[in-house]
Amino acid sequence: MVDLNPSASFSLKIKIEIPNRPGTLASVIKAIADVGGSLGDIAILQQNLKFTQRELTVDASSSEHAEKIIAAVQQLSDIKVISFSDRTFALHQGGKIKIESKLPLKSQSDLAMAYTPGVGRICKAIAQEPEQVFSLTAKSNMVAVVTDGSAVLGLGNLGAEAALPVMEGKALLFKEFAGVDAFPICLDTQDTEQIIATVKNIAPVFGGINLEDISAPRCFEIERRLREELNIPVFHDDQHGTAIVVLGALYNALKLVNKALSEVRIIINGAGAAGVAIARLLRKAGVNQIWMCDSKGILSTQRSDLTVQKQEFAVEATGTLADALKGADIFLGVSVPGCLSPEMIDSMADKPIVFAMANPIPEIQPELVYDRVAVMATGRSDYPNQINNVLAFPGVFRGALNCRASEVTTNMYLEAAKAIASLVSPTDLDSEHIIPSVFNPKVASTVAKAVQLAAENDGVAC
Amino acid sequence: MVDLNPSASFSLKIKIEIPNRPGTLASVIKAIADVGGSLGDIAILQQNLKFTQRELTVDASSSEHAEKIIAAVQQLSDIKVISFSDRTFALHQGGKIKIESKLPLKSQSDLAMAYTPGVGRICKAIAQEPEQVFSLTAKSNMVAVVTDGSAVLGLGNLGAEAALPVMEGKALLFKEFAGVDAFPICLDTQDTEQIIATVKNIAPVFGGINLEDISAPRCFEIERRLREELNIPVFHDDQHGTAIVVLGALYNALKLVNKALSEVRIIINGAGAAGVAIARLLRKAGVNQIWMCDSKGILSTQRSDLTVQKQEFAVEATGTLADALKGADIFLGVSVPGCLSPEMIDSMADKPIVFAMANPIPEIQPELVYDRVAVMATGRSDYPNQINNVLAFPGVFRGALNCRASEVTTNMYLEAAKAIASLVSPTDLDSEHIIPSVFNPKVASTVAKAVQLAAENDGVAC
Repeated sequence: MVDLNPSASFSLKIKIEIPNRPGTLASVIKAIADVGGSLGDIAILQQNLKFTQRELTVDASSSEHAEKIIAAVQQLSDIKVISFSDRTFALHQGGKIKIESKLPLKSQSDLAMAYTPGVGRICKAIAQEPEQVFSLTAKSNMVAVVTDGSAVLGLGNLGAEAALPVMEGKALLFKEFAGVDAFPICLDTQDTEQIIATVKNIAPVFGGINLEDISAPRCFEIERRLREELNIPVFHDDQHGTAIVVLGALYNALKLVNKALSEVRIIINGAGAAGVAIARLLRKAGVNQIWMCDSKGILSTQRSDLTVQKQEFAVEATGTLADALKGADIFLGVSVPGCLSPEMIDSMADKPIVFAMANPIPEIQPELVYDRVAVMATGRSDYPNQINNVLAFPGVFRGALNCRASEVTTNMYLEAAKAIASLVSPTDLDSEHIIPSVFNPKVASTVAKAVQLAAENDGVAC
Repeated sequence: MVDLNPSASFSLKIKIEIPNRPGTLASVIKAIADVGGSLGDIAILQQNLKFTQRELTVDASSSEHAEKIIAAVQQLSDIKVISFSDRTFALHQGGKIKIESKLPLKSQSDLAMAYTPGVGRICKAIAQEPEQVFSLTAKSNMVAVVTDGSAVLGLGNLGAEAALPVMEGKALLFKEFAGVDAFPICLDTQDTEQIIATVKNIAPVFGGINLEDISAPRCFEIERRLREELNIPVFHDDQHGTAIVVLGALYNALKLVNKALSEVRIIINGAGAAGVAIARLLRKAGVNQIWMCDSKGILSTQRSDLTVQKQEFAVEATGTLADALKGADIFLGVSVPGCLSPEMIDSMADKPIVFAMANPIPEIQPELVYDRVAVMATGRSDYPNQINNVLAFPGVFRGALNCRASEVTTNMYLEAAKAIASLVSPTDLDSEHIIPSVFNPKVASTVAKAVQLAAENDGVAC
């Protein structure tokens, strides 16, 4: 396994007490550096004539590395480690979301309006005219983030409870990036029919459904049925969010190599939810040559082990991923760490584009092949060109909710991808800048506008 | 139908422009008073040499009354009505709750800790040790407010969407009074098995379930099954919240008339969810003589039309509500407006206690019988002794969540009732003060403490 760089995901707070003597703080910093810790803030907590208490923020590359850093500080003479904590665990204490009131509730008259008896008139108004639920309740801005915990990040089938931190995190992103209220729904069932029935039963409160981390192939059926049976947008982020951002990034990458979507041959490695959705969206965008691979190689018409979704993309060619890549223009990986080699990239066509999006460890470490590729992207924030769904889903829902779209159409995905691509200006565009930063404040609103327009053109807006 | 007093639930904002001449504002105020409007704040919006714009807050007693008030102002010469709005509808625009982040999310390192990749470590920790979901997510403070919309307030079967404003209101009360995060779940099904399955499926996110406005008799089965099948507290507020507050108020009322719970005969009118729960809790509290009535009169062993729940309380006596009340000590009404007459109260035993809790219009208007009763209570905020569930449910859940109770036991109800009664000190206790104000800041914490202690004594705390 390739070693990762220190990052905030393994970040520590270390409280130390050091004697006020020149060189002691330096010795701490050196000890941390010697074991590869990455030092962040250093704050003084308190100070007297003899001692200073400081709090150090240190990034590590793994839990074991974090322990090694603490041990390195502990073994220094004269330095007392008062306490240390894992920042990621510390900030998760008590969870990441809360429910807040939009109104004051301090007097009998506040109560009489927000609750009984006044609220009864609001109920009657909605009963008489059901459309009013969109204006008189929180529904029109409320999205359910729904999972069954069957495919949590890259970690597998961890179940509903263990998936909750991811869904809460998603709710934060919805709020922060697009002002959307999102609530986690982690289902204590992995049965397709039960999931569909449950989501339909709770739908009245929500203006949209974001499916998340549900394993393939059940996710396809669940999404299809919910789209058919509900009149609010249903979006499986692992599929469409990924597909939108990949397409957006590809638009810009192709400009750099001066190739056309309709002419390139694209290899997609990984035929799960993301891979299938990427392939489908690329076809709609005009790509003519897509070869998909799973762990057994090319999805070939000669194979008899393909699911319905895989059959959609079966080609005449046969062979391994390495075979597929020979002469190909683009590699899109939504698969597993380390499955791509420098030699495989060398066998590709001129100016290869490589998106190695396995998370958190890519199909190939970028530093190994920077001089062999024209454009390289990953799913990571510590390399250039991060393919991150947060560029898509907040804006997609913002746009869909703004126009009260009854569904999310393929044109809405395509326009979202173009909007993302458009945020990199021609003067900024280069091989390390094919996609905007997730903190670019224009992303969500630009995507929302494009999505809303597409919804209106497709006649699904209200 | 009895006329109601003006209240904030029919409150108006009226913007007017009046010429700066002595007596013009007075003419507006008089016009409003003449049609019975109750004037609140008067604010100046802007002013020039000739005119002043003011905004008046006026309470009405009904929608028709509100229209009459506006018309009365509009017909004044020299006064221009710029606009008017219904305050209750205005404050419901966009709903009453929102989802907020507990954390900043401004940098890549914030993202790396709250979301991927850092969150993956939190997921793994919960997968390895499921109990950790209580400390590392929002679950331990999150309550689902669940309804099927079948019995919304006193308005009947309005359905899921029309029930949402009440459930959002409940979420506000949970937060304001006890710091509990509560989220509305309005179900698009009224099938008992579907409701049970759906609530079980979404339970992983919640630390407790508050059932609300589900009609009898389905509510009994739904609550029983969910209590059996879930390991978090399940509480049907229409039943137990009401029962707790009624019992708390009765403890204090009985002190005033110097009678004992074990000796009084109590008539409960209304044998729905609230009536049955009140009867059950009173029995557990030591009441020996309970006669229940429904719309057909006394629940008698001679009747063949009783549900299982009603059979629980069947007595040998037969007759009407009027028959039942002869010589009875206490009337508890959870029924319909106007079903109690002064004569019926006169037929009761000495020092009758009357809780007329039909909402919003009581079984009898208090002003008709103040000199005939020892203690009178209603469900209304504009009369003394308001029997309001908000005295119970926030503290009950606060206590249950604080000790991670696996269920809510009868002893927890009984202790909550005693705690509510204890908040009226002996020196404050009189016939118009048998129960604390909902804005008494000690209510929720006192109830929570009592509930937690009872949970620990019953061995259901964690």
